[in-house]
Amino acid sequence: MPERMSRDRADLDALFESTVLAHIAFIDEDGSPAVVPTAVARLGDTVVAHGSTGSRWMRLIASGIPTAVSLAAVDGVVVARSAFESSLVYTSGVLFGSWAALEGDAKEQALRAMTDRLIPGRTAEVRASTKRELAATTVLGMPIGEWSLRSSDHWPEDPDEDIAGDAWAGVLRYGPSAATVRVHPAPDLRSGIPEPASIGRVRGVR
Amino acid sequence: MPERMSRDRADLDALFESTVLAHIAFIDEDGSPAVVPTAVARLGDTVVAHGSTGSRWMRLIASGIPTAVSLAAVDGVVVARSAFESSLVYTSGVLFGSWAALEGDAKEQALRAMTDRLIPGRTAEVRASTKRELAATTVLGMPIGEWSLRSSDHWPEDPDEDIAGDAWAGVLRYGPSAATVRVHPAPDLRSGIPEPASIGRVRGVR
Repeated sequence: MPERMSRDRADLDALFESTVLAHIAFIDEDGSPAVVPTAVARLGDTVVAHGSTGSRWMRLIASGIPTAVSLAAVDGVVVARSAFESSLVYTSGVLFGSWAALEGDAKEQALRAMTDRLIPGRTAEVRASTKRELAATTVLGMPIGEWSLRSSDHWPEDPDEDIAGDAWAGVLRYGPSAATVRVHPAPDLRSGIPEPASIGRVRGVR
Repeated sequence: MPERMSRDRADLDALFESTVLAHIAFIDEDGSPAVVPTAVARLGDTVVAHGSTGSRWMRLIASGIPTAVSLAAVDGVVVARSAFESSLVYTSGVLFGSWAALEGDAKEQALRAMTDRLIPGRTAEVRASTKRELAATTVLGMPIGEWSLRSSDHWPEDPDEDIAGDAWAGVLRYGPSAATVRVHPAPDLRSGIPEPASIGRVRGVR
């Protein structure tokens, strides 16, 4: 499978734009490998993630142990004339580094970034977080340092004898899942509250 | 965030149906954590993955070292009346175990399952893999043993004072990215070759 490696930071940033879900791998306290899926956002040169203060894995990560963080997007399928030449269209990045808790303004800024990442402009539409809510939330940041990025996106590359045959070939390209988003107002929504601009932005495909 | 834990194997199988991308975490030869995204399929009680025989991480995994395998699907966003109560709609499963190379019939069956997982019925439309292609491919299987699964899917659960306010609330639900699939025939496709049934099945949303 022909793969393209990239050292271009713009490609990494584009992956953060397309993918909110990261997988954080680390070595658990008992020495075994562990992996946790979690939402992330990029804030300048920092990856941020958040969770409950009760989260065991976040406490472990916050101690500064080494982690490997994967973001991956499957964007389609290269449908070649043989199973062997068929492959995924994807972009995959792995970052290596360690995390530390963010506090004060940095913590609040990261939380706003997380919310606006999923629902653009949402933080301007809701009340600020309370002190109690902030105290119940752990926010971690990891500097973007060592990383690698690879992608694969090409036409089928079949040998001549397969091209001469009768099998179809092409590329399937998946759209963003947000392109088919459905919006369900809450059953306890008070009447007269219109759908806000942030939800319209999600409907417009992020 | 209210989470539901499941010990129901049917829920795990449903996650394999909805998600082709897994993240395999392991401890690298230098002792550091590593994570690799890869396509997987479930074949009965075995998870299968494949790659090039030249793949370094597959060779390492094939030695039987412990791994943690995550499958995760983000299906939407719970948009609460505060950032704090907002959360993801998701299903996440982690399996623990070790991998071994599959050979012979088991290998060929697993490869067919991988292809048909992405493009249902495709293997019936293309030639069989050659001995040379099979020799260039590593196929690994991991028995489904220890695993955990959690999901979150609920209406916003705001406190009364927020419900009395003016903020909108609801749930965004993403459709499958395959619902917006685009099909691009190869530039070197011979004229007169129609789009096969397998591609129609993908258009119909898997």
